Amino acid sequence: MTTPIMLNAFEMLVPAFQSPGLWRHPADRSREYNRLDYWTDLARTLEDGGFSGIFLADILGQYDVFGGDGDAAMRGGVQYPILDPSVIIPAIAAQTSTIGVGVTASTTYEHPYLLARRFSTLDHFTDGRVGWNIVTSYQDSAARNLGLSGQAPHDQRYDRAEEYMDVVYKLWEASIDDDAIVADADAGIFVDPERVRRIDHVGEHFRVPGPALAEPSRQRTPLLFQAGASPRGLAFAAKHAEAIFYNGPTPEIVRGWVDTVRGDLVAAGRTADAVKIFTMATVITAATDEEARAKYEDYQRYVDPEAALALFGGWTGVDLAGADIDAPIEHLETEAHQSALSTFTTLDPDRVWTIREMANFISIGGRGPVIVGSPTTVVDELERWREEADVDGFNLSSVIRPGGQEDFVRHVSPELRRRGLLAEQRPGATFREAVLGKGPRLAEDHRGASFRPAAVGTRA
Amino acid sequence: MTTPIMLNAFEMLVPAFQSPGLWRHPADRSREYNRLDYWTDLARTLEDGGFSGIFLADILGQYDVFGGDGDAAMRGGVQYPILDPSVIIPAIAAQTSTIGVGVTASTTYEHPYLLARRFSTLDHFTDGRVGWNIVTSYQDSAARNLGLSGQAPHDQRYDRAEEYMDVVYKLWEASIDDDAIVADADAGIFVDPERVRRIDHVGEHFRVPGPALAEPSRQRTPLLFQAGASPRGLAFAAKHAEAIFYNGPTPEIVRGWVDTVRGDLVAAGRTADAVKIFTMATVITAATDEEARAKYEDYQRYVDPEAALALFGGWTGVDLAGADIDAPIEHLETEAHQSALSTFTTLDPDRVWTIREMANFISIGGRGPVIVGSPTTVVDELERWREEADVDGFNLSSVIRPGGQEDFVRHVSPELRRRGLLAEQRPGATFREAVLGKGPRLAEDHRGASFRPAAVGTRA
Repeated sequence: MTTPIMLNAFEMLVPAFQSPGLWRHPADRSREYNRLDYWTDLARTLEDGGFSGIFLADILGQYDVFGGDGDAAMRGGVQYPILDPSVIIPAIAAQTSTIGVGVTASTTYEHPYLLARRFSTLDHFTDGRVGWNIVTSYQDSAARNLGLSGQAPHDQRYDRAEEYMDVVYKLWEASIDDDAIVADADAGIFVDPERVRRIDHVGEHFRVPGPALAEPSRQRTPLLFQAGASPRGLAFAAKHAEAIFYNGPTPEIVRGWVDTVRGDLVAAGRTADAVKIFTMATVITAATDEEARAKYEDYQRYVDPEAALALFGGWTGVDLAGADIDAPIEHLETEAHQSALSTFTTLDPDRVWTIREMANFISIGGRGPVIVGSPTTVVDELERWREEADVDGFNLSSVIRPGGQEDFVRHVSPELRRRGLLAEQRPGATFREAVLGKGPRLAEDHRGASFRPAAVGTRA
Repeated sequence: MTTPIMLNAFEMLVPAFQSPGLWRHPADRSREYNRLDYWTDLARTLEDGGFSGIFLADILGQYDVFGGDGDAAMRGGVQYPILDPSVIIPAIAAQTSTIGVGVTASTTYEHPYLLARRFSTLDHFTDGRVGWNIVTSYQDSAARNLGLSGQAPHDQRYDRAEEYMDVVYKLWEASIDDDAIVADADAGIFVDPERVRRIDHVGEHFRVPGPALAEPSRQRTPLLFQAGASPRGLAFAAKHAEAIFYNGPTPEIVRGWVDTVRGDLVAAGRTADAVKIFTMATVITAATDEEARAKYEDYQRYVDPEAALALFGGWTGVDLAGADIDAPIEHLETEAHQSALSTFTTLDPDRVWTIREMANFISIGGRGPVIVGSPTTVVDELERWREEADVDGFNLSSVIRPGGQEDFVRHVSPELRRRGLLAEQRPGATFREAVLGKGPRLAEDHRGASFRPAAVGTRA
């Protein structure tokens, strides 16, 4: 029997997310990002198409590296303005029945006692369909607006994140027993205090006596996503993640990374398949290869190079303002530039890219592959990727919003279903069960489970 | 023409809110507080009954004064466990068309840059139907869990709150012009950076360069509620509030307070009616006075005195554990005790209350009146209160949830409508317009409006 392919939609509550300039395409409806029904309609479409999840990215600052200010990002609507993704999750749950919703939240700017309650609440109101993408945040502009003079060094942010995770595990897994909510009217007991305990966490960054504010939800700990690609980020993922997002331009490059992750997991005492890996991909599809190719060519006319370079500056810290856009990238001289450009140089070490070509490359596909074609062509390519890269699924980015997602559901999902390749979702399953095939609670070999007292089980 | 009476429902995402013990009544469904449809169904019911708003209270700690721990509050489910109210607001908006949703959020525990974005997001996704109840928080247990050794002194919390308000006003009112979101595909401009400005706030508690993350919403600043009754709280309300919640046991006591507030408003440079005042009331109603009276007597059988005293301890800091429940309250000796009991002594200086009587009084009605009767009786009493106390409406607490609210909508709303006393809601109106009769933006004489540049108007 074939292992199904998991589908996750990659989104953000912004006018321009992964494809700068494409909001200007006549078919694009990104301007509606501030309307609730845009998001609930999209979630329903994706659920019809067999997606296991929709993932809502988030940042708390502006892309202000390009030209030294945020002007280019603003003009392009590049992840600005941005709305708070967490508050739409129950509304999405109310209008869907199986799709999970993952959301980014930072361990740097919010207190774990508040974050723990919010995710417990989301897990109650989605009936177990919420996931958390753990980030430590990377923008100086966010740090400055949140009261710091600049962001803490990378490793220090991860030290804090490690302690942060222990605090939330204690709140989610250890503070309230499964049978603590008695709700016995005759006995007059709603909560049995003997089955609730303080966590008495005292650490370098946090002192949290507890107990948790929210009663245990179906998953207790939300499904944990992570995307850090640095050595410290990888070690963090091996310890905490249950699903990982990765971006790589070829199956070979992704495969090397996947093998490392699987090895790290085993070294960390978990099973090699304890984490599901989603690699980023952009699919442009239509009934025939020709039509799909025509779409791709049409889309390229809407790329906005300045906006793409604003996005690139935010990712890499490299400011390409003032450079000749038709000059080759190799003329950029510093080591930081070269490192930031490694995605491109690994693709083909001999190719000379111009800045414009790189901007176009970023704008349609980002740091992952662009798969263009008929349903047959697309599914062949997804299968090839899945096998060669050894990934569990795809984190799908859309050039036209929500048209790209609608095209995928109309054309590709039926072909995946026809080949028995679509991981069909089971009503009533939690996000953890949908993605990991087991749950609804953290697996016994996960770090979070080590905080559990005997009175807390793995079954909801 | 008669001025209509405004209705607001007072609620909280907890098993026992204002009526400890009543969750045990066979008709009560408070156990469903962690189900999303409980809240969306309730909001629809209230909207049918002509309520202008539902208000979701919040705390971040436990009631741990009684007996020195949180056990009694837990047993009684007294505001524990508690879920995050903000994340259900868009789901409520999606299933209603006119009702506003107010929510408590504290200036003590969350950074204003994050809070500002969350409320802007809620205002977008409710199409202008969100309100903020500004609190500085009052529980030591919350302070300890959020990393402080104990809560800051009362005045210091208000100093911080004053600066906090300036930061959010700058983000909501001053950072992004009305016409900054151009979204012009031909020009290739989503946001015009010339119409976005940093706020460059530098104060004692916060440094926030800006700009705001979210684009302006219909109301920009959410409708501002406040409930502080201390002298400092009153001064804060005179400056910032657009609606105030008050609790008082008789129209005379409330009237004295209302006159003070109206005077303070004028002294602060606002109009005497710039703030709408909602006084707390509990209505128990049925088709006839006899049936309503029978309900009231039935409800009293479910009061839980220990849980009521846990709530009382949290409000006042007075621990009555170990006291003889049938002893008179006057035997309690300290000045703090006497002050905490002033609600009861002002009612009738000569009456001697036992602790049990006080617990019963708290459990049905809290610190406001209990109005028991047929629709005619109830509306007569609401009219009398409205005239004698000079209030604009009622903040209605329910003994049985959601049965009390359903009874009100079934019996009282039609009688209010028959007399032309119900403030009917207009689809498309913002919460500010529904409550203040004008908007959707802050009035020109409100402090928040003083931060506006010329390019920001009062119309959405």
